[in-house]
Amino acid sequence: MKYCNQCGAPVELRIPPGDHLPRHICSRCGTIHYENPRVVVGCVPEHEGRILICKRAIEPRRGFWTIPAGFWENSETLQEGAARESQEEALAAVEIGSLLIVASVLHAQQVHIFFRAKLPKAEFGAGPESLEVKLVRPEEIPWDDIAFPSTDYALRRYLEDRTAGREDHHFTTFDRRLPRS
Amino acid sequence: MKYCNQCGAPVELRIPPGDHLPRHICSRCGTIHYENPRVVVGCVPEHEGRILICKRAIEPRRGFWTIPAGFWENSETLQEGAARESQEEALAAVEIGSLLIVASVLHAQQVHIFFRAKLPKAEFGAGPESLEVKLVRPEEIPWDDIAFPSTDYALRRYLEDRTAGREDHHFTTFDRRLPRS
Repeated sequence: MKYCNQCGAPVELRIPPGDHLPRHICSRCGTIHYENPRVVVGCVPEHEGRILICKRAIEPRRGFWTIPAGFWENSETLQEGAARESQEEALAAVEIGSLLIVASVLHAQQVHIFFRAKLPKAEFGAGPESLEVKLVRPEEIPWDDIAFPSTDYALRRYLEDRTAGREDHHFTTFDRRLPRS
Repeated sequence: MKYCNQCGAPVELRIPPGDHLPRHICSRCGTIHYENPRVVVGCVPEHEGRILICKRAIEPRRGFWTIPAGFWENSETLQEGAARESQEEALAAVEIGSLLIVASVLHAQQVHIFFRAKLPKAEFGAGPESLEVKLVRPEEIPWDDIAFPSTDYALRRYLEDRTAGREDHHFTTFDRRLPRS
């Protein structure tokens, strides 16, 4: 951030009085611009024992496999956001179920909140952000070509819980931040 | 948002190609400025059966009671953020426990994620954003002077679960958006 989005003047990075983190502060109007982590919502859609996965058509991790997920938008619940992403990325009308994982992804300044989901009909396809979408049995999941640690974590917890006949939720943290020089 | 924070030129509000929502787009450099909901993290701290509550010293809802909570910051897990807010608002060193509630607050463009917590020692005080901080028994909770719907929801679910001897998590949605004219 270089300029104030309220008045257009340059911003400077400093800790406001009473705060504990540096913020971008406008040199003219004094507006403090807070930057907060973003929420990624998604789901593991299941249809008759098989899982719906998507091959990414966009960076980061183009060509790798993921579950339907994306940035949570204003004016929707987390569950509505997760269902919307399935529609956009996999052209799939899912029914969102229980909470599966909450992952703090520190290097991306994100939290990933993924749910279980049902895909009532085997109807799906590749949306603009996907190269390919398919239903896979657990033994067909391409573990070596999974896009993100949270995808891998969500799929493993999903399958473990399903085998055990439970629907727990799981917390974890991923931190691939580089050490400060 | 009126100006691009990358180049300082005016922004215009329109739907980018392939998108579904209007975004602020720079008229000069073309940067698309996404605005996403923010995460509020907090907890219900308990010490020997009593709950720690804070009277707000700041708007909105100055003078009303809440639990320690605030905006989740970059570079911390949700649990670390919840503990930090207890330290800042109530000078209280808490141990964060299980997930209590996840509330989509559509009119504020926020999600509130609150945890159970233990306050091992009855040591606390009013931080700069609090007028008063105190431990209360369930029958002493000032239900008519609670700051936010999510505070009320979290306290009620906490007490119900405690009485029932369980630690569930609960989803809800609050929507006080005004109808579009």
